[in-house]
Amino acid sequence: MLEAREDEMVAIRRYLHANPELSFHETKTAKYIADFYKGKACHVQTMIGGQNGVLVDIEGGFPGDNLALRADFDALPIQEETDLPFSSKNEGVMHACGHDAHTAYMLVLADCLIQVKDRLKGTIRIIHQPAEEVPPGGAITMVECDCLKDISHVLGIHIINNFPTGTISYHPGAVHTGRATFKLKIQGQGGHGSSPHEAKDSILAGAQFVTAIQTIVSRKIDPMETVSVTIGSFDGKGSANIIKDSVILEGDVRMLKESSRPKVEAEFRRILKGVCLANEMSYDLDYMNDYIVCINDEATTIMVKEALDLANLKEVTTINDCGALNPSEDFAYYAAKRPSCFFYVGAREIEGACYPHHHPKFRINEKCLLIAAKAMASSVLYYMSEGV
Amino acid sequence: MLEAREDEMVAIRRYLHANPELSFHETKTAKYIADFYKGKACHVQTMIGGQNGVLVDIEGGFPGDNLALRADFDALPIQEETDLPFSSKNEGVMHACGHDAHTAYMLVLADCLIQVKDRLKGTIRIIHQPAEEVPPGGAITMVECDCLKDISHVLGIHIINNFPTGTISYHPGAVHTGRATFKLKIQGQGGHGSSPHEAKDSILAGAQFVTAIQTIVSRKIDPMETVSVTIGSFDGKGSANIIKDSVILEGDVRMLKESSRPKVEAEFRRILKGVCLANEMSYDLDYMNDYIVCINDEATTIMVKEALDLANLKEVTTINDCGALNPSEDFAYYAAKRPSCFFYVGAREIEGACYPHHHPKFRINEKCLLIAAKAMASSVLYYMSEGV
Amino acid sequence: MLEAREDEMVAIRRYLHANPELSFHETKTAKYIADFYKGKACHVQTMIGGQNGVLVDIEGGFPGDNLALRADFDALPIQEETDLPFSSKNEGVMHACGHDAHTAYMLVLADCLIQVKDRLKGTIRIIHQPAEEVPPGGAITMVECDCLKDISHVLGIHIINNFPTGTISYHPGAVHTGRATFKLKIQGQGGHGSSPHEAKDSILAGAQFVTAIQTIVSRKIDPMETVSVTIGSFDGKGSANIIKDSVILEGDVRMLKESSRPKVEAEFRRILKGVCLANEMSYDLDYMNDYIVCINDEATTIMVKEALDLANLKEVTTINDCGALNPSEDFAYYAAKRPSCFFYVGAREIEGACYPHHHPKFRINEKCLLIAAKAMASSVLYYMSEGV
Amino acid sequence: MLEAREDEMVAIRRYLHANPELSFHETKTAKYIADFYKGKACHVQTMIGGQNGVLVDIEGGFPGDNLALRADFDALPIQEETDLPFSSKNEGVMHACGHDAHTAYMLVLADCLIQVKDRLKGTIRIIHQPAEEVPPGGAITMVECDCLKDISHVLGIHIINNFPTGTISYHPGAVHTGRATFKLKIQGQGGHGSSPHEAKDSILAGAQFVTAIQTIVSRKIDPMETVSVTIGSFDGKGSANIIKDSVILEGDVRMLKESSRPKVEAEFRRILKGVCLANEMSYDLDYMNDYIVCINDEATTIMVKEALDLANLKEVTTINDCGALNPSEDFAYYAAKRPSCFFYVGAREIEGACYPHHHPKFRINEKCLLIAAKAMASSVLYYMSEGV
Repeated sequence: MLEAREDEMVAIRRYLHANPELSFHETKTAKYIADFYKGKACHVQTMIGGQNGVLVDIEGGFPGDNLALRADFDALPIQEETDLPFSSKNEGVMHACGHDAHTAYMLVLADCLIQVKDRLKGTIRIIHQPAEEVPPGGAITMVECDCLKDISHVLGIHIINNFPTGTISYHPGAVHTGRATFKLKIQGQGGHGSSPHEAKDSILAGAQFVTAIQTIVSRKIDPMETVSVTIGSFDGKGSANIIKDSVILEGDVRMLKESSRPKVEAEFRRILKGVCLANEMSYDLDYMNDYIVCINDEATTIMVKEALDLANLKEVTTINDCGALNPSEDFAYYAAKRPSCFFYVGAREIEGACYPHHHPKFRINEKCLLIAAKAMASSVLYYMSEGV
Repeated sequence: MLEAREDEMVAIRRYLHANPELSFHETKTAKYIADFYKGKACHVQTMIGGQNGVLVDIEGGFPGDNLALRADFDALPIQEETDLPFSSKNEGVMHACGHDAHTAYMLVLADCLIQVKDRLKGTIRIIHQPAEEVPPGGAITMVECDCLKDISHVLGIHIINNFPTGTISYHPGAVHTGRATFKLKIQGQGGHGSSPHEAKDSILAGAQFVTAIQTIVSRKIDPMETVSVTIGSFDGKGSANIIKDSVILEGDVRMLKESSRPKVEAEFRRILKGVCLANEMSYDLDYMNDYIVCINDEATTIMVKEALDLANLKEVTTINDCGALNPSEDFAYYAAKRPSCFFYVGAREIEGACYPHHHPKFRINEKCLLIAAKAMASSVLYYMSEGV
Repeated sequence: MLEAREDEMVAIRRYLHANPELSFHETKTAKYIADFYKGKACHVQTMIGGQNGVLVDIEGGFPGDNLALRADFDALPIQEETDLPFSSKNEGVMHACGHDAHTAYMLVLADCLIQVKDRLKGTIRIIHQPAEEVPPGGAITMVECDCLKDISHVLGIHIINNFPTGTISYHPGAVHTGRATFKLKIQGQGGHGSSPHEAKDSILAGAQFVTAIQTIVSRKIDPMETVSVTIGSFDGKGSANIIKDSVILEGDVRMLKESSRPKVEAEFRRILKGVCLANEMSYDLDYMNDYIVCINDEATTIMVKEALDLANLKEVTTINDCGALNPSEDFAYYAAKRPSCFFYVGAREIEGACYPHHHPKFRINEKCLLIAAKAMASSVLYYMSEGV
Repeated sequence: MLEAREDEMVAIRRYLHANPELSFHETKTAKYIADFYKGKACHVQTMIGGQNGVLVDIEGGFPGDNLALRADFDALPIQEETDLPFSSKNEGVMHACGHDAHTAYMLVLADCLIQVKDRLKGTIRIIHQPAEEVPPGGAITMVECDCLKDISHVLGIHIINNFPTGTISYHPGAVHTGRATFKLKIQGQGGHGSSPHEAKDSILAGAQFVTAIQTIVSRKIDPMETVSVTIGSFDGKGSANIIKDSVILEGDVRMLKESSRPKVEAEFRRILKGVCLANEMSYDLDYMNDYIVCINDEATTIMVKEALDLANLKEVTTINDCGALNPSEDFAYYAAKRPSCFFYVGAREIEGACYPHHHPKFRINEKCLLIAAKAMASSVLYYMSEGV
């Protein structure tokens, strides 16, 4: 049934790929999704969370626990460089993380589930979530808008283009880092390049800060803990011969335990204070804790693994524990409210270089669509028959 | 004679101030200057050096050494913030270095000299020079276009708004730093902020470079020598959560002896190579030696000082040796070809904060116009009577 | 039986504590251990590995798998500052890591096992190991000298003075970091403090290196991996007014996966090369990989846990998985050859500050002796009855 | 007369070279000097300033201004490596700055002056000064003990082994840097190398401080001013695997204007405070201003130059203005009290490498002895005939 509709998944994915929309602005995609369900035997809600969220309830014919399935659908502010025939038509916007694939497989899977709904137990709620890529993320308001009402468990899939196609991966426990982002203005005093003693060089202070915060990870955090601190933006553009009066730094912090979070922030603030004191700078720091650590429920994760083992899908060659993944995921907010499992479907292309997620040349093997659909279907059915 | 025309100098200065033009684009100012001389008893050449230079020859009635007087007339890419009634009408362009004043006093002085030319010895050549502010500077092509042909000596004045009005200053020997400017691209590899091990962080490498080059001045150059190295621009704007693939740095180097120049460049290149090696970066460096050190001829400088002493101008309270000045000056190119003296007329306002040259709030005391005119006139007359 | 001999364990521990000997020089301690077994029904070998190792075989009355128990007995080059009545009598040497306790409980336990040996299965081999604290460690030559011949599994205990007394902890998998140590001479050129340009400042180069290697952990290694890089010694003592010609740095590197090891070394060498290039330094690096990662066998670890659960010791309040521990342990070499479990007995004092292992004020709660003896006895008996 | 005694100068110099004594401990040298004058027609005072100073007054036969000549005689804590037959007999002590030469020429010159004293004007006071090399320097207490009483002017010579033999150099104005020295303890918290998060790494903080203070010279001081800041000692010796709890840094600061002094100290303290704040360190700083800037009186310097020009010594090929010299000199304390001139006699060896002052292989061309004696004699005689 899913196999017969593989082409449809591909077509949907390509359409979405060609028409990406930025987080919090995915109005056309949301409409496309809602339109897909028109006339189908399900209950559709749109504009969830004052945003572009779409909730689709498929009521089974039998009583049972309600299960939510989440697929996200926003794209990234990246100019595509793939040369694919279905490349992005929207300047500077690209599905470079695979959310197009998530939505494509999920729509077809949902339609199949709708067709057999009388045989299903409980209600299946499809959460079409916008704005995964931009803090605070779309999940948090979806959750606030009661999208998990009456739901017992939540499942989600992310395709991963540097995991081999045919591999499905999972990990119980902490599976995605939590995050903080910061924006920092370091303010000195401008002046003429020939007279440094009459100025306060903000680029130098910024440079010392970038160097100094390396010690948070190298010295301040237990080597057993996972933390990263990245300065992603150092905006100090000026003139060759003028000492820059101020610079703006932006970056993010990741951690795999929530307990690391306050330690990093405290060190960050201390180092900033010290570096600015040493350099006679003032500063303005906006330090925002955003995504929480995403923690897979152990029992739910084992359920998914068992479902996959049992399904013995012919396209799947490997089912493994991949450990935690470095990036953050706002699936964390569902997982914080309900026992959940977020798992991974390999999508590496057979030939050619593998450009990572968020790269202008990011590509996937579209066979992942059918695999994701089957893997999620297997999990849904196992959930109904065996529970968590 | 000059005193009677002080208001005219002020009016010209205010007109120029309100109508500033960027270096190498001063066509209207050049026309204004040329128009000023129309119908006057002098020889005017325009478009000197394929640029906007204007040369005005005033032939004296008696034979004698020919003396050139230089005044520059370009403005800066700065958005004026003075609230003066004659503020710049040109968005993002400002006379923030006093070249409006240089041109204003010089035009009136030239006119006066024209009126008395029959009594003068030799030819006085007024060099109205464009493009002082931007390397390679307007002087170099003026010199190449033979503007110093038949000239024995060159004089020039810069007003200085943080020297008290009423002070005239001079210094024999090296008086303005030479300069090199550089533009540097440090190229690493982008990546996701959560996965630094898969990227090569160019912001970090840039920061280490900024920190490391401080050691050129602190350790590599004789403390007895004058050198500065400034990074004026660190262009690493990106996204908080993405490791930046490359950064572009720009800056300048100053020295008061030409012998320091190759040492600084060699250290700069060595440090860059080392930092990039340590950080797995490649780089692309454009290192340009531009302005040379400006060296006042000792005898010519003493001549000016003696002229000023003798003139005993009532507006002048102090005549002093101010030592060398930190910024560079393309007057250096005249001084390299002919015995020359570049000297300084104080222009500090009586009240209020003193914003430095190149500051959006830069202001001058317009009394400096008359003082400059008289100081230059005194030097010209003394030169004719006493020689160098 | 063990309870009745608690005082004896304490007495032995205090004797050893008062008479500590440095790694590879523990001749008196080895003799003390060998003497303990004199006249007892066991087979004692001394001078194992050309060192001070002592092997004691206790043959059980029944056939069975042979089990080795390891206790180390060397002390540290630390001047004790505890004021204990049984403080170290040896200047600058101290049992500041609890090896005195390991040997004390093991001797009494061994004696008890000897007394009931006819009822035991297989042979129990007590490995009294010297030189745990100093690379390459005593274990490696013990293993090379066939101390594991005919042995099926190995167990070992470390007391931990910042785990609460009453807690026994374990962890399957990687449990102690592997290590590399390095000694590095950075060679510049001396000179007079007033003339930095005539010297090459090795202290500055060393300082830049210390700063730069922070980036190995912060940027070069996956945040999911555990690595630390420490400079423990910066020997740059000289005169205030003389630029130092060379400095000697020493330090160590830790990792919890052997796969991290070559990555760290490659980065270390690259950064060193780059920093030395930037600073015109030459260098001489001795980089030694020493302790390997210590990995507990999963089945053996579960066996120990089950043994402890079953024993239900009245002194034990908590049995938990403590995760991996930061320091290295040369027990790793046994664990690399045989399925092994190294586990931990809490020894925190009830009152007062807790000074960490290797601190001059390190103290333990001596109740840990009996707990360790019982815990190891329980594991031994369970091993004989249930196997791994 | 002086020429005839060149061998004697050499012999004295070699004796002193073989028998060097450390600053403030030059008792045998002081005795040797005093003994030299025994039975000669002069007035000798010893133990000046509670130290080893020797004052010798030679009264001329005619009235006139009194002139002091200063020669220093202490040696350095350096192990000689020259292989000279008259190498230092004192382990770890060496005349590596030429004070042996200063004393040698001065003794013979003094003897000659004594012999002709009836023909001289005024009193010549020879100041044999100890302890030039170690702050606060011997000069300061000599001055406090009234060694300049009734003295009008002071002259002194330093031989310079990297100025060509045959060159005599002088400079009016600031001629030697002033100095501050500092000793700094940075206190963190020790710990195990594998657990940086439980320690506070003082070596890292020290390294950041060394890096950061480079910015004093590079950014905080006018490039037109001469300042150097050197960390000459970084005492952080410890164990490879233990995080160091504290480090001790020592160094010095030089400046050519006293006005730079407080600026450097303020920046030093600010940077220290900031770096320690960023790294959670405490610190203990002992910052001592010691030698003042040595400033030659312009008129006295011109007098010396004219004397040398007039003398037209056959051994002297060049008389030049060498500019200021980087090192400090406690001759500064005489120059602060009386119009003085400190000048330089080249002593470069004809062949072989030239090792700088304070180097274990420092050597001089002994021809400098006669040249120094003649130069000083010429200056003395000119002073008497022409005055300053």
